[in-house]
Amino acid sequence: MPASLQRVDVELDQRSYPIIVSSGQIDKIAGHVVAAIPDLTHAVLIHDEAVSWLANDLAKQLENLDKPVRVSSIDVASGEPSKSIDVFDQILRRMLDEKTDRKSIVIAVGGGVAGDLAGFVAASFARGLRFIQIPTTLLAMVDSSVGGKTGINLPGAKNMVGAFWQPRLVAIDTETMKTLDERSYQSGIAEVIKYGVIEDAEFFAWLEKNAEPIVERDSEAVRHAICVSCQCKANVVRDDERETSGRRAILNYGHTFAHAIEATAGYGSLLHGEAVAIGMNMAAHLAIDLGLCDASLIDRQIKLIERCQLPTTWTDANATEMLPVMNKDKKVEHGKLKFILPTRVGEVRLVGDVDSSAVEKAIEACR
Amino acid sequence: MPASLQRVDVELDQRSYPIIVSSGQIDKIAGHVVAAIPDLTHAVLIHDEAVSWLANDLAKQLENLDKPVRVSSIDVASGEPSKSIDVFDQILRRMLDEKTDRKSIVIAVGGGVAGDLAGFVAASFARGLRFIQIPTTLLAMVDSSVGGKTGINLPGAKNMVGAFWQPRLVAIDTETMKTLDERSYQSGIAEVIKYGVIEDAEFFAWLEKNAEPIVERDSEAVRHAICVSCQCKANVVRDDERETSGRRAILNYGHTFAHAIEATAGYGSLLHGEAVAIGMNMAAHLAIDLGLCDASLIDRQIKLIERCQLPTTWTDANATEMLPVMNKDKKVEHGKLKFILPTRVGEVRLVGDVDSSAVEKAIEACR
Repeated sequence: MPASLQRVDVELDQRSYPIIVSSGQIDKIAGHVVAAIPDLTHAVLIHDEAVSWLANDLAKQLENLDKPVRVSSIDVASGEPSKSIDVFDQILRRMLDEKTDRKSIVIAVGGGVAGDLAGFVAASFARGLRFIQIPTTLLAMVDSSVGGKTGINLPGAKNMVGAFWQPRLVAIDTETMKTLDERSYQSGIAEVIKYGVIEDAEFFAWLEKNAEPIVERDSEAVRHAICVSCQCKANVVRDDERETSGRRAILNYGHTFAHAIEATAGYGSLLHGEAVAIGMNMAAHLAIDLGLCDASLIDRQIKLIERCQLPTTWTDANATEMLPVMNKDKKVEHGKLKFILPTRVGEVRLVGDVDSSAVEKAIEACR
Repeated sequence: MPASLQRVDVELDQRSYPIIVSSGQIDKIAGHVVAAIPDLTHAVLIHDEAVSWLANDLAKQLENLDKPVRVSSIDVASGEPSKSIDVFDQILRRMLDEKTDRKSIVIAVGGGVAGDLAGFVAASFARGLRFIQIPTTLLAMVDSSVGGKTGINLPGAKNMVGAFWQPRLVAIDTETMKTLDERSYQSGIAEVIKYGVIEDAEFFAWLEKNAEPIVERDSEAVRHAICVSCQCKANVVRDDERETSGRRAILNYGHTFAHAIEATAGYGSLLHGEAVAIGMNMAAHLAIDLGLCDASLIDRQIKLIERCQLPTTWTDANATEMLPVMNKDKKVEHGKLKFILPTRVGEVRLVGDVDSSAVEKAIEACR
């Protein structure tokens, strides 16, 4: 295996699948696809319109294989509104027109929106088609493409409808991000930092040494960061595929705050990773206030986040608006607010029944 | 356990669940529900408007328990059009308004339409809620409520969107059929006969002795027929939960023809069970034509079907119209027509690549 291609395996009870991570090897993606699905004859490519160049390239690769694959190409508009029941319905009808059947596969090409939407489509069409993720944003590479969560939104309720549906393959090539703007790219680094805080102190220290190469998209550094992040997520998902044991909840570090930030800011004004960066800072403040960890964690976390060109504060933060949103979170079970909070770099804990005044204080601290 | 309450266990790899079969014990259903879901606090009752009387009764039972359960009652119009993405969407929004969360459960009360629709809702809301089936038609009791297939329709494509989502409990009481009309009731007997033909010669012989008590709804005979049918379906589902090994396909005996009959007749002009009865006759003719079984099978099958007040022929049967529909069946894999055909009473076989002229002949034989 050439040095610029690495592999992480996601081990699950019923079935395992590989995450392939490469740089500058977009021309080999169709090869990975047929290696994962040897009997492939028809692929439905659901792709974000922003990466049509990549979807077209991949379609050509698949059509020109020794055993040519029929490709149905369906593009979706960039942005969260595509994760709707209407778009879900349109794609399903389109797939029916394209004579999609149980042996067909779905390939998602794009960021989290395309992946989440195409994944739920794959889970639901004919009660489940085989599925492949080709994430093209850093956020999707290190987070949403791994772990099998798929879904669409209801008005005011993100990811409220969906399925756990594991892909057969996640094929990542860092070059697919070449058309991704700086701000969106940097936003993805927030989730990378998250893995360091929740599980891997050594990786956090590595990020402290390599923040600039990551920001500047040095392909070797980026590949390493993606591999460690995916391995961390794979470990968590292996232990708790369907979010039943509580273990998977650690991935939500910073996210309860982040979702409330995104909702009150209006989706789109802050990128998800930016909200996560601010949310991790709020969570760290909450942890210190509750006596769970010492202040050095906040210092290290703030410094690393800032070096990665991400925000740690939000001037519009408003506890009065954010708290009701937090109470409506999908993860709230019959009204109890829970937080994943750090005890030290590399370790977090689930803390329930947190006093809302402490939450308010943490929010105010990050304005 | 009183004689009028029986139990069949559905054993699956990951989880097993009971089917409880009783007569005249509607007042005990809430007790079965909380026995299956001890931490129950909120139930979403999705019910066919035709059995609102039962849904209201059950809601009262749940609200009056020692630990009262909050009930959200959502009724759906009777009939196949309710299995649409629009109705799916409406129910999901309604559930959000009703503050449904991950600890809530979904209870389907009704026939196959309510069960299939509510099951897909349960599978999809918050990526999966616990689910209970309370079937109120014979067809749903012996077929659709058991086995975890859920789904809705796309225009012209039945059950094309859905999930495998197993219930935690199937609670059957024969008295829930008291408002079910004769024709709908008799239609369900077709699926009962099917189990005899595909798996259980002894049960087929029992049905030959008990056709009249079944038709006249003798509760003991009906209960026995339901239990044996559910056990047969449970055995098949245990071996092939997600229809991957081919084993589960035997449940489609008569159904490839039946779906084509229903589609060309226009959904609703023939009931599903009536189409299945005719379809089984067509399948038996095809089997004899292919030299798979002898003519005595047809004789016995026709006699039993007729004694159960079901049709074996359809004057409008038209091979030219039916064949294209059969080629579009969800079970067709890249264009190959397959049939489940009997070799003798109690045994069937999957036969692929059947010549379309033989299929035509079988259709013509049942006009």
